[in-house]
Amino acid sequence: MRPEVHLALVHHPVLNKEGRIVTTAVTNLDIHDNARSARTFGLASYHVVTPLGAQIELVGRILRHWREGFGARRVPTRVEAMNLVRVSRDLDEVVREVKAGREARPIMVATCARKRSGTTAFKEMRDRMAREPGPYVLLFGTGYGLSDEVLKAADALLEPIGDPSDWNHLSVRGAVAIVLDRLLGERG
Amino acid sequence: MRPEVHLALVHHPVLNKEGRIVTTAVTNLDIHDNARSARTFGLASYHVVTPLGAQIELVGRILRHWREGFGARRVPTRVEAMNLVRVSRDLDEVVREVKAGREARPIMVATCARKRSGTTAFKEMRDRMAREPGPYVLLFGTGYGLSDEVLKAADALLEPIGDPSDWNHLSVRGAVAIVLDRLLGERG
Repeated sequence: MRPEVHLALVHHPVLNKEGRIVTTAVTNLDIHDNARSARTFGLASYHVVTPLGAQIELVGRILRHWREGFGARRVPTRVEAMNLVRVSRDLDEVVREVKAGREARPIMVATCARKRSGTTAFKEMRDRMAREPGPYVLLFGTGYGLSDEVLKAADALLEPIGDPSDWNHLSVRGAVAIVLDRLLGERG
Repeated sequence: MRPEVHLALVHHPVLNKEGRIVTTAVTNLDIHDNARSARTFGLASYHVVTPLGAQIELVGRILRHWREGFGARRVPTRVEAMNLVRVSRDLDEVVREVKAGREARPIMVATCARKRSGTTAFKEMRDRMAREPGPYVLLFGTGYGLSDEVLKAADALLEPIGDPSDWNHLSVRGAVAIVLDRLLGERG
């Protein structure tokens, strides 16, 4: 059984270096790299979450270029990845879009690079996904990570990748790729 | 035991969309993302391989900015990752630098997104790395992948990530992150 898994890349509310809540800028490469990872691992959608109107418009322009414009003609394989991308104003909108009129609320699974209590091991979440069809939403923060408010509201918080007492500054693109592989990749 | 593992991102000889051998341009984000993945998984070095003088100079300028310049002051954690980066003109230079006067030639491990015969399973290479200290060099191609010449000269070729008969267009940054995690990441 393949679970229904969605990805959300959050630009607000996230932390800056000083631990204050900010809104980060959307970057073109986050859209591409995460869409390609999402397509590789069979995700149902990838939500770029930002409340800023100008950023929402920017994402729309990028998507048109790669779905229908010159980008689509130059790199046809990219279309399938870009077709997974949605733009959402906040996490409530992500939940509504993922529910799509269905009864059950999606299972929100947050990620964090820091050591925190009560985290779920990757193997545990992988086993759950093999058992329960979802839908699941995997939440990733840009900047210095998801705000406490988002982490606390989530149904589960995945353990960090690597050793957080050593050096935990993986790119969000690398973290998305590894988390999808750990939860959904083939195991040889 | 922790094996000695190096990473090489090859810009020549690699394939373009038509299967011809080309030299691709170095990109700033490849340097950053792969350096951060390399540092996370305890790699010994990350070689950006390009024969082009102007590109070698460009990488040098980027490295100075992030090791000693304004970048290093703004994002101090990035220094440790950027300190792993080397620039090499070709794979022979990578081999010489990795050997560093030692007797044994490094074990060259290539990667490819396409299905090919004679590939090594991730688990097999992971077990070998747990047994033999190396040094190993993991080879990744930019563009449309490493040339046949590089694949044939390698000591091993890793199996592709995901299902190559489905959709195999992961970003090289995502592929590097996943391969390092599969070979060297903690297994829960």
